[in-house]
This record gives sequence, C-alpha cells and structure tokens, in this order.
Amino acid sequence: MSLNPSTLQALNAAVLSDTLDSLGLMQQAMKPFMRPLDDTLQLIGRARTGLYMPVYAAPAPGENPYEVEIELVDDLAPGDVVVLACDGPTERIAPWGELLTTASAARGASGCVTDGLVRDVKQIREMRWPVFCGGIGPLDTKGRARMVERDVPVMCAGVTVRSGDLVFGDVDGVVVIPREVEDEVVRRALEKVSGENQSREALQRGEKLADVFKRLGIL
Amino acid sequence: MSLNPSTLQALNAAVLSDTLDSLGLMQQAMKPFMRPLDDTLQLIGRARTGLYMPVYAAPAPGENPYEVEIELVDDLAPGDVVVLACDGPTERIAPWGELLTTASAARGASGCVTDGLVRDVKQIREMRWPVFCGGIGPLDTKGRARMVERDVPVMCAGVTVRSGDLVFGDVDGVVVIPREVEDEVVRRALEKVSGENQSREALQRGEKLADVFKRLGIL
Amino acid sequence: MSLNPSTLQALNAAVLSDTLDSLGLMQQAMKPFMRPLDDTLQLIGRARTGLYMPVYAAPAPGENPYEVEIELVDDLAPGDVVVLACDGPTERIAPWGELLTTASAARGASGCVTDGLVRDVKQIREMRWPVFCGGIGPLDTKGRARMVERDVPVMCAGVTVRSGDLVFGDVDGVVVIPREVEDEVVRRALEKVSGENQSREALQRGEKLADVFKRLGIL
Amino acid sequence: MSLNPSTLQALNAAVLSDTLDSLGLMQQAMKPFMRPLDDTLQLIGRARTGLYMPVYAAPAPGENPYEVEIELVDDLAPGDVVVLACDGPTERIAPWGELLTTASAARGASGCVTDGLVRDVKQIREMRWPVFCGGIGPLDTKGRARMVERDVPVMCAGVTVRSGDLVFGDVDGVVVIPREVEDEVVRRALEKVSGENQSREALQRGEKLADVFKRLGIL
Amino acid sequence: MSLNPSTLQALNAAVLSDTLDSLGLMQQAMKPFMRPLDDTLQLIGRARTGLYMPVYAAPAPGENPYEVEIELVDDLAPGDVVVLACDGPTERIAPWGELLTTASAARGASGCVTDGLVRDVKQIREMRWPVFCGGIGPLDTKGRARMVERDVPVMCAGVTVRSGDLVFGDVDGVVVIPREVEDEVVRRALEKVSGENQSREALQRGEKLADVFKRLGIL
Amino acid sequence: MSLNPSTLQALNAAVLSDTLDSLGLMQQAMKPFMRPLDDTLQLIGRARTGLYMPVYAAPAPGENPYEVEIELVDDLAPGDVVVLACDGPTERIAPWGELLTTASAARGASGCVTDGLVRDVKQIREMRWPVFCGGIGPLDTKGRARMVERDVPVMCAGVTVRSGDLVFGDVDGVVVIPREVEDEVVRRALEKVSGENQSREALQRGEKLADVFKRLGIL
Repeated sequence: MSLNPSTLQALNAAVLSDTLDSLGLMQQAMKPFMRPLDDTLQLIGRARTGLYMPVYAAPAPGENPYEVEIELVDDLAPGDVVVLACDGPTERIAPWGELLTTASAARGASGCVTDGLVRDVKQIREMRWPVFCGGIGPLDTKGRARMVERDVPVMCAGVTVRSGDLVFGDVDGVVVIPREVEDEVVRRALEKVSGENQSREALQRGEKLADVFKRLGIL
Repeated sequence: MSLNPSTLQALNAAVLSDTLDSLGLMQQAMKPFMRPLDDTLQLIGRARTGLYMPVYAAPAPGENPYEVEIELVDDLAPGDVVVLACDGPTERIAPWGELLTTASAARGASGCVTDGLVRDVKQIREMRWPVFCGGIGPLDTKGRARMVERDVPVMCAGVTVRSGDLVFGDVDGVVVIPREVEDEVVRRALEKVSGENQSREALQRGEKLADVFKRLGIL
Repeated sequence: MSLNPSTLQALNAAVLSDTLDSLGLMQQAMKPFMRPLDDTLQLIGRARTGLYMPVYAAPAPGENPYEVEIELVDDLAPGDVVVLACDGPTERIAPWGELLTTASAARGASGCVTDGLVRDVKQIREMRWPVFCGGIGPLDTKGRARMVERDVPVMCAGVTVRSGDLVFGDVDGVVVIPREVEDEVVRRALEKVSGENQSREALQRGEKLADVFKRLGIL
Repeated sequence: MSLNPSTLQALNAAVLSDTLDSLGLMQQAMKPFMRPLDDTLQLIGRARTGLYMPVYAAPAPGENPYEVEIELVDDLAPGDVVVLACDGPTERIAPWGELLTTASAARGASGCVTDGLVRDVKQIREMRWPVFCGGIGPLDTKGRARMVERDVPVMCAGVTVRSGDLVFGDVDGVVVIPREVEDEVVRRALEKVSGENQSREALQRGEKLADVFKRLGIL
Repeated sequence: MSLNPSTLQALNAAVLSDTLDSLGLMQQAMKPFMRPLDDTLQLIGRARTGLYMPVYAAPAPGENPYEVEIELVDDLAPGDVVVLACDGPTERIAPWGELLTTASAARGASGCVTDGLVRDVKQIREMRWPVFCGGIGPLDTKGRARMVERDVPVMCAGVTVRSGDLVFGDVDGVVVIPREVEDEVVRRALEKVSGENQSREALQRGEKLADVFKRLGIL
Repeated sequence: MSLNPSTLQALNAAVLSDTLDSLGLMQQAMKPFMRPLDDTLQLIGRARTGLYMPVYAAPAPGENPYEVEIELVDDLAPGDVVVLACDGPTERIAPWGELLTTASAARGASGCVTDGLVRDVKQIREMRWPVFCGGIGPLDTKGRARMVERDVPVMCAGVTVRSGDLVFGDVDGVVVIPREVEDEVVRRALEKVSGENQSREALQRGEKLADVFKRLGIL
C-alpha cells in the first residue's frame, strides 16, 4: 500500500473506470443508484468495510445494537473510507448520519460510501465531508438492521470491496480499485487524462470526431 | 388537536422518526422515493387527504374530471397539508402543479405531499412553497386518473395518513405523526434533540464514540 | 419542417404535454426517470436518433466500436438533438460524455437525450449544454454496448422518436412532438399558455378554484 | 358484432398476435405476468370490463363494497369474458375467486381475465373454467380495493380493453382483438395457420429453414 | 398453545385471510411470489424461524457456515414448520434442499416456508413434503449467506413471523396466524366455511349474486 | 472438447453449481426467472449463442429480419444447445417457438435456453424437447428485435456463455460450465453425488444432521 491516495486527485471516476476496463476489470463501478450528497466533493481513500444484516425486532434489554459500528468508527485512521454494505438499494435503513460523520471526520477519515440510506443530510452537507449513498431517509437501523461484521469482504452497489482497496468517488459515481492493480491503474489513468485534454482541444477547434479519434484513439 | 404545529420547527425528520420508533410506531416515514422539490424547506401541518384512481379514457362530455380535487383545494384551511395518494411511485400522472399550488398557498395551506409526480417545478420552486413528491413529470391527470374521494384514510409512500394527522417533511424525508400520539412524540423529540447536541459536541472534541454512546445513549 | 424550433421558447413541457393529450397523443412524454443534468436549461431541437445493442465482449482487434456514433456526431447540423436509445433505464452504459458533448456543441447541436447514463457531468454542466439522461455513471460503452444504427425510429424512455421530430425538454421532463402535428401543437400550446396566465392571476387574487375553472376551463 | 367467437377455436394466441402485428396493432398481447390457472384451457369471448381503485379503510357500516362487482356479474351474458383491471401486477388484492366463478359460469360466461390476483384456485381448476391472472393470493378486496366502474375502457396488463372486444387466451397468453378489425384479423389468422402447417411438415422432413422460409415466408 | 393444528385441515388460506381481516389483521398473508412446490399439499404447523444475512466470502478454514441451520433442524419437533427469512425475493441463495428436507421430515416437521430459493425440487416433490418458496435455483448458501439467528422474530414475504405462530399454506398462498388470536381465528373461519357452502349452492342453482349476497353476506 | 456431454446425465444442476462454487466460479447458475417449459426434462449440450438487439420499426421491404437466426439454426449440429440472449427478462419478445424447435430438433440439437419469451408452448411440450426460458408470450420478434450476431460471447440471465460451453438444465435451473474447467467440474461433481447418497441414507435413518455433516461434510 505504498501509493499515496492523494495522487488520485487529478483523476476522475470516468477515466479510472476506463482504465480498469482496459485491464479486463469491468465490474468496479458502483451502480448508478449511488449518488453523492454533494456533487462538488471528491472522495479518495482506502476502504474500511462494515456488513449489515436485517433484523425485525427491538434489541434485547442491555444489548447495544451499534456495537460493531462503534468499533469500526473508533478504529478509523486518517484517509479511511467507511464502506457500509446493506444489500441495497434499500427503503428500510439509514445506517449513516450526522453523529457518525462527526466522529469519523474527527479521526481524519475521508468519507463514507453506503448502499443504504443516509440521514441528517443538511448537517452532513454543511460539514463538506463526502458521503455517497443509495438514497436519503430518516430511518434509524435500531430494530431494522445491525452491523454484524467489519473489515470483511462485502458487495456494495454491485462491486466487491475489501478493506484496504482504493475508493474513488466524484459526481460521476464511485469506483473501487483493488489493491493488486492500483499502481498500474493510477499510472495508466494519468496518461489517459493527458490524452483526453488533447482530444478536447481538437474538438473545440471544430475538428471532425472521426479524425480526432483516428489520431488519438480516445473518446 | 390542541398542539400548535409550529412547535415542530425545532425538530427534524430523523429525530421524529426515532421518537416514533421508540413508541413502537415503525412505519411512519415515507419511502425514500419521496423527495422535496426544494431541499431547504421544512414542511409542517395537518393532513388533508385525496385518493386517486386510474382511468383510461377521456372524461365524458360535460364531466369535470377535477371536481373532487377542486373541492379539496377550495376547502383548505391555513396550516393544512395536501396529501395526494396515487398508489405511487407512478410514471403516469402529475396530480400537482403550479395552479393548484397558487390556489392552496392563497388559502394559507402549508404544503403538498404526493406519491404521484409534480409538474411546473420551476414556478413552484420560485414560490418557495414546500412540495414533496414521487417524481417530476409533465403528465396531466385528465384521461389518466381522477381523485374520487377526499378526507378518507389513504396510504401514501408506505404510510397510512388520515386527515388531521401531523405531517413533517425536511431534506431527510416525510414523517407522519398520528393524532393520538402527537403530544407524546413532540415532547420526547424535543428532549432527544437536546441530547444530540451534547453528543455532537463531545464527538467534535474527539471523544471516542464508544464513550459518548455509553454516557449519553444517543447515536 | 418549416416551423422554426425557436418558436417553442415561450412554451414548457407541461403545456406541450397537455396539448398533445388534447389531440389524443398521450404517449409523448418521456418517463420520469429521465432528468436534466441542469434544471435551468431548456432543450429545443429536432431529433437525430441512435440505437444501441448490448455486447458482452471487447471489440475485435482493429474494430472501431464507436463507428456509427462518430458518424452520427460528425453529421449533426445546428439545432439537432442527439437521441440515444439504450433500452433504458440501464445500469450498464454511459453512451454520452464530455468529448461527444464538445464535438456536438462545436457543430451547433442543441442537446442530447438518452435513456442511458451520462458521464463527465461536471464538465458538461460547465458547458451549459442541455443533456437529459436516465442516470449518471462512469461506464464507457466499449465492451458493453454498441450503436448499430442511426436515424432509425427508436423508443426512448417510453416514447417513439424519429429523426426530425421536435424534442422539447425542461425541468418538468422531455416531450416529443411528431412532425405531422407540430404546427397544430405549437399553435394550441401558445394559446393555452395565455389562458394559464389568466388563471394564475385570478387564483393569486384569492378567487375560488371552482369559479376560476368554471370561467377559464384551465387547471 | 356478427362474428361468432367460436370461429376462433382453430386459432391460437401466437397466430393472432402475428396477425394483429401485420395490421400495425402491436400492443394487443397482455404482458407475460398474466398466466392461465389451467394451461390446457382456451378462452374465447367478448370483454365485459370492471375497473378497480385502491382503498385503505374498511367499508362504512351499511356500505356494500362489492356493489358494482355484483352488478357486473349478474349482468353477464353467455360468451362474456370478465376483464378486471387492478393496475396490476399487484400484491394487494384478489378480486376473483370461487363464488364469482360459480355465479359467472351459471350465466354462461366464458372466463375471466384480471391483472389482479385470484384465490380459490383449487376449486376454480376443478370447474375447468378459464381464468387468466396476474398471480395467486388469498387477499379479499374488502378494505383494499373497490370496483368503481364497469363497462368502461380499461388497461389490463398493458392492453386497452373495451367491453365488446374479442378476448382470446391460451397457454401462450392473452390477446385482445378490437371490434373494428376482428373480421379482418380472424380471416388472415386462419390463412396463416394453414401456412404454418406446411412449414412444419417441411421442417420435420429435414428441409433447411432458409429454404422453407424463402418458399413460404413463415417463421 | 392448546389448539391442535390438525383442526385447520378443513380450512383454506382464503377463509383464514378473510377471518384475520375481520379482526383488523390485514398483513398476515405472504406476498404472491411465494409459491408451493406442490399445489396439492396443505401445510399446517407452528413456525420455527431462521434469519439469514448475506455474506460475500467463503467461510474461514474450520468455520462451519451451516452451524445455526443444523442446530435448528436438529431441534425440530413434530408439527414444526421451518420458516427461513432471506430478505426475499432473492436471486442469490437457495437455503433449502433435499438433505434438509430429509432430516426435517425424519423429525416429523410439517414443512418449510422460505422467501429464498429452493433446490433439489424433484426429490422434494417425490417426498410429498410441503415446501413454499420464493423461487427455484441451484445456488448453495455457502459463501453467499449464513443463518445467524434462530427462533427470533423475522419478516418473511411481508409477514412478521415468530416461532410458535400457526402457519397455514395451500395453493392460494401462505397465511400466518399469531398465537394470541388463533383460537378466535379458527373458530370464526370454521363458521365462514359453512356459510360459503350455502352461497355456492345457491349460485349453482342460478340465483342472482345480489340476492345471495344480501341473504348470506358472503362473497 | 473431448468430454462427452452424456457423462452429465447422472448429475444435476445443484451438484454442478456446488462444484463450480468450489472452484471459485460463483456466477455460473442462471437467474431463477429462467424456468423449464417441462419440469421433467434434462438439458445437456454445448452452447451455440445468438445475440439480439431491440428494434422499433418494421423491417424494410425485402429485408429478412430472421436472417442470422436462420443461419444459426441451419448450422446446428447434434448436441448443440441454442442460447439466445435478449437482455432479459423481457416483456417484449418471444424469439423461440414451434417452427424453430422443429427445425432444431430435426438437426439433432439438444435444446434451447433464452432469457426472452417462448411461444407455441403446447406444441413444444408435446415434442418433449427441452426449452428453458424467461417467460411465455405470443409476441414475434419481427418489428421488435433482431438477432444481429451469432457465436459471440453473450450474457444470458446473468451468466456469460460462449459457443462451446457446456450447458446443463433441469428443474432446479440452468448451469453453464466453461470449457476450460469442464473435465475437473464433471469429475468432482460425480464424486459429490456419491457423498450425497450417503448423507441421505444416514438422515433417513434419523441420524442427527450435526453428526452426518461432521462425518461427511456434505449438506
């Protein structure tokens, strides 16, 4: 994990997705029901996963339904991205909200991605801390779901995520870059960004798309 | 109905949902496909319900397809919230638009909630009158649906609503508070808001979530 | 095709949809999953269609998977609206992005409508060029889909579109006006807009909706 | 309505659908969620429509929630096909069951088609009376839905149906033949059946499909 | 739990659903995606629940992914009905198959209900042991899901089920009768069955439905 | 391709799916919307793929919309399984029917798998030729879809299929075995079948599931 996630700031979800495609990794972009709370924020960091199960009864007296969730948040390191897998899209639960955002931001975590719902949207937006989610709703998880494991492989919005994987999000969506290929992906993606700049300029000058694509091979 | 709806201005959908949960009322938040036209507006008032049926033919000559709808709007009192149940989400009908908004606002009504679509979105946003809906689309109800009853119990986006129930909406969604429990719910919710403020401050200071949750019991 | 599309600038999607309804054409508004990237932009122009098929393998060596797409874009004339039919809504492909937008805008095209996804949303918004789409996502079509025909009749978000049809989009959605009826539709729609203004003013003065509707027959 | 429905006994849903297609009527086959309770029965007759609306409360004391339904069934004539439109597919209501089947069969009606659910399936199958439905479930309509109109145009499983239209069902599905074209459709369909017999025999003899299709033009 | 489940043999899902409706319990019939493997079998017994969570990784070495499942099956008593909640309908997992059926039948259990898939359908049908499921598929749960709790309240196909609740299934679907009301429900349902017999006979004689309903009040 | 498909007759979809799982190939079972027309037939053979695209207009005069389809069927060899990918499930098209079945059976092909609909179900069942499909419906592809490529990789009901892959279907569903692993899969699956027989016998004798699983490791 020697790559510094900040190298990705010059990139975007589309170019990362294309680069992963070029390596035959075509399932790395989360489904489009995943949207950012704030379109202007870029999310970059390494995944810390949490896995939820549905429950249909109030917690037993004395039971702490948030136990694993609290452990995960208190264990976050700077640059971590919380990835909460709820078998979404879901109408039933909002596993993320203002207080967890506050606690995570205080530990330097980079953001949160969940295929569940999110609540306290107004306050989270004011913090300008990136959250990508499967929808918005006020429903607490208590009595509806419970995080049962953390730092295990999960499926979130169609993508397999393991703790330590690079996670990148922007207005175009969320892309996950497996650790094994991250150096290769980032190197290639930086090259592609530069090629796209040349294409854009040629097209702005009014060149035919057919000619530009023939010369630069980028669309 | 002695409670003044304005008491709810200090509250939010999440805390109201948690409070209803604590009373065992876990089906009071509308499904997340319901979204505000304007994220910044708070909706507070008492429900006035309308129930639609699908139709598949133009109205007969001389028939007024908007008859019940017009009766409902002309009967609105200050603080009323129009709740239109279309068995949504739907792709077929937009029962609400600019002219109904203008007429309702002129009577002092607080807003509109519908699991159908809404049209004339630009003009409604300019009026800054809160509307929560199941989507946006230009399709008039004429020849597609008809309000057949008003002030009857309806199901809207998964929640049973009766005329007179308290309706609360903000960016996190729409919550319905049955009349029977409204005093209890509002009292408890105001207490919870104050507890959340303490949690937030502790977390901002960098306290462990585990410690804060142990001490305050709020997440 | 003598009608100048700019005549439609005083209109909106709702009034056009009502007018088409009044002629018995009730399937001309695209489904509500179609949303503008920019709520403030109006889209007006004549359709140029492209039809996609799904593919499940990388293009053969030497094959240009964008061939028909490039032909379509290079053939655009001022005022054309690109209409891309992907059998959406889809989670799999984003047939439109920044470079195609740049090339199309350079040729004077008016905008793009697709039931597929769109990427490079930030850059497209900065260009203030109207795009209506079935969602947002970073996934290139290469290895996932291919435009196989252009300027053929397509179904896009529930509406049949032929090259040359008038396309109108605003915040309320996208409406397609078949060539055969465009003169009649535009004429009637302009009349209806003027009637709505009278209704609005009467309602703002506090008149009963029943009275206004009786007098003007517009809702 | 001079055509005798019994003429259709030699036909099948596929050939009728093809024939309607050949006249440009491509929306006449109900969606595939509509299935027969008994795969071996053919349904032929003229539609008698009923239109349901959702309700969310028990009927008022003294109110008969089945009033229009009873009127429709008591008014059935021999050869009528009950067509119940519930805006299906639905999980909520089973508008058809054993007692309505018994009453309808006693009047000589030919069968029932509904995009709602059906109950009492065992008894209906024993009667060998054809029912095509959107699913099976035990839920009575009382307190959930109500037939509000009869003999009005309805949409059932994607097809517009008017009382008097010919309805044909077999294991392949349900097809609706509008009155205006029924003579033409039945004549052409009988011809096509005869052509298919020739194709089948040639193919059974092992002829190439390309040759058979070239010669007979039927697939 | 003094009521003997065998008392229910004279009943059916429709009459039980109506009876529960009459007590205001309108959410007791499972959704119609739940179908019996064998239409001719009646399922009667008391629920024993199991609750699954999704997993996305192979079990750790030495871990038994079936542990709770095995405990539940080995603990079954005669007359128990296994109720497996998988947050269905699902495409991902078949928690029930031939070996579990064999083991359960050997302990005298009455049947199985799951909103997941079932496999080994041929062998289960040959045993004539009633299974109601959300679909059919070959996919083992190992590496896809895990039963994490048993004998806890679950939601299965839209109905809350607690261990000990009466479960009734036939070709019309599955109905759950909460323990608190079972005596009342069974008593009323037996009365209703007798009334339906009278209605049926009158209708078979050709009486008007309106007259029969007026006299007997049953439809 | 030395393995003789008839070796698979002693196997079933569940044991093949488990064996593929054990090799880490967890996406080889088609989704459960795929069902056999005849529950009692086993399908075994090698895939011959066809890929469809949607179309929305009648074929041009002189154009043969079935051209590629006819080529595929006329090129079938004994033991081939036709696999038609329509991006299903779909409500729009039935690419398979009686005449294609007759032609394919005459060439010795083993069966057909399609995520589209199938028509002429009665006649196909009478031929006892195995067809697995995404539903039943009468709608011809002409004017709705067109096979554009054959013997290319396709995705059918969630599984990637290449011409030459082994395809196995029975009442539990359809499983695809990639050529590279077919020898290994079949060998392991035959072993597992034998282990399951031992488990079954022990459970029938009333042994505890926990003991049987401990001893044989099979569930």
